Amino acid sequence: MLPDRAFFDTLADAAREQTLPRFRTGVSVVNKLAGGFDPVTEGDRAAETAIRALIEARFPEHGILGEEHGNVGLDREHVWVIDPIDGTRAFISGVPLWGTLIGLQSNGRATMGMMDQPFTGERYFADGKVATYRGPGGEAVLSVRDCGQLSDAVLFTTSPHIFEGEDLALYRSIEEKVRLFRYGCDCYAYCLLAGGHIDLVVENNLQPYDVGALIPIIEQAGGIITDWDGGRPENGGNIIAAGSRSVHAEALALLARR
Amino acid sequence: MLPDRAFFDTLADAAREQTLPRFRTGVSVVNKLAGGFDPVTEGDRAAETAIRALIEARFPEHGILGEEHGNVGLDREHVWVIDPIDGTRAFISGVPLWGTLIGLQSNGRATMGMMDQPFTGERYFADGKVATYRGPGGEAVLSVRDCGQLSDAVLFTTSPHIFEGEDLALYRSIEEKVRLFRYGCDCYAYCLLAGGHIDLVVENNLQPYDVGALIPIIEQAGGIITDWDGGRPENGGNIIAAGSRSVHAEALALLARR
Repeated sequence: MLPDRAFFDTLADAAREQTLPRFRTGVSVVNKLAGGFDPVTEGDRAAETAIRALIEARFPEHGILGEEHGNVGLDREHVWVIDPIDGTRAFISGVPLWGTLIGLQSNGRATMGMMDQPFTGERYFADGKVATYRGPGGEAVLSVRDCGQLSDAVLFTTSPHIFEGEDLALYRSIEEKVRLFRYGCDCYAYCLLAGGHIDLVVENNLQPYDVGALIPIIEQAGGIITDWDGGRPENGGNIIAAGSRSVHAEALALLARR
Repeated sequence: MLPDRAFFDTLADAAREQTLPRFRTGVSVVNKLAGGFDPVTEGDRAAETAIRALIEARFPEHGILGEEHGNVGLDREHVWVIDPIDGTRAFISGVPLWGTLIGLQSNGRATMGMMDQPFTGERYFADGKVATYRGPGGEAVLSVRDCGQLSDAVLFTTSPHIFEGEDLALYRSIEEKVRLFRYGCDCYAYCLLAGGHIDLVVENNLQPYDVGALIPIIEQAGGIITDWDGGRPENGGNIIAAGSRSVHAEALALLARR
């Protein structure tokens, strides 16, 4: 049996109860570290615990891949992929661009996913066929845009510092070509791409839980997300997402210079 | 006569009516440029027009320094300093970290200011004595934090690409020392500093309207904002803002290597 939107909402609501009260607590993370857990680690763990309890009660036959509390039954037909707080640096700094990522894989393929940003009240959801948005701007069906070519693209990445050596050179070769680039959005950037606001996201060294929920959101909004070789992105690693096949192909050609 | 909070709210509300409907319109900026104005330029101009009309009706004796529509009476006792959309790249990309900046200078000193982020519903305001916040998290008096030393600081800047040559080397000398740095927040970073969420902002080549509204918010939250030589920041240029005098002094010592 597969979950419905209401169940994803229940999971995101449960996570929100653990994350939002710890956001902008004004407590210096340095001080908290000296005394034990910091707010983001506390929120991360408590949110994943809440999500897992709900999944295990409702879908005991499903597997779970989580950032904080390890993996269970990854060989099962349906596997949940959870990152309770993606964008811990944003969370620590008070920037409302972190997100709770809840994805579902069936037979190894990411099919459903939700990104919830509790502070702005935005929720991106892919139900297996269609990707939708709920937030301050109302409700909408998500649809990528086609900017036509790489030189007209708006590119996002979390930070140039995530790249080293050859990866950095390859990333820069794309950055040099685009119309506008911007740093610092983590999961939020992929949702902006699904919403047709930006055109390209290039990142590396991602974990499966960093992308599990985002793959269906992008694909069901009409976008494309792969690894840097054009392969399936479920395992994470070096990831590229684009609003159109032509821009994806142009960027992939630059990345193929390895 | 000086304006009250209600008048600032009226100005921000008028700007919001022009900016928010143009945010995330899904229209490719490239396409719009080919056909005339882009949404952010339209929003910028319409918002400043709306703000100026209200000021001129209520305070005809005041001067106005605006990003879009030029300057009037800069030698008068009270001068408004307006940036209708600070963070145009964020606006273009759908990132809700741009802001409407409305500041008031008296005898050349920034004394009152508001930063409004219409999408998140956040409003930061300095009334001449106290800086306060209204937003999804309720209402609060803004107060900076003291992280103690530069090596424990969270640093923000809009992008490392804003710096060139010697400025870049100086900026990097600070970036290398801090605990965590992050890119991409424009005016929002200064408000996070006033709220005690981050510790340091370092930028260069700012215009007076980029900082006019933010100076009183930071100072009245207990923070310090100066140029890179430690002088008054009203004229813009190279700017540094910190949550404590010790961190400000440490960073300024690095910048003094010029």
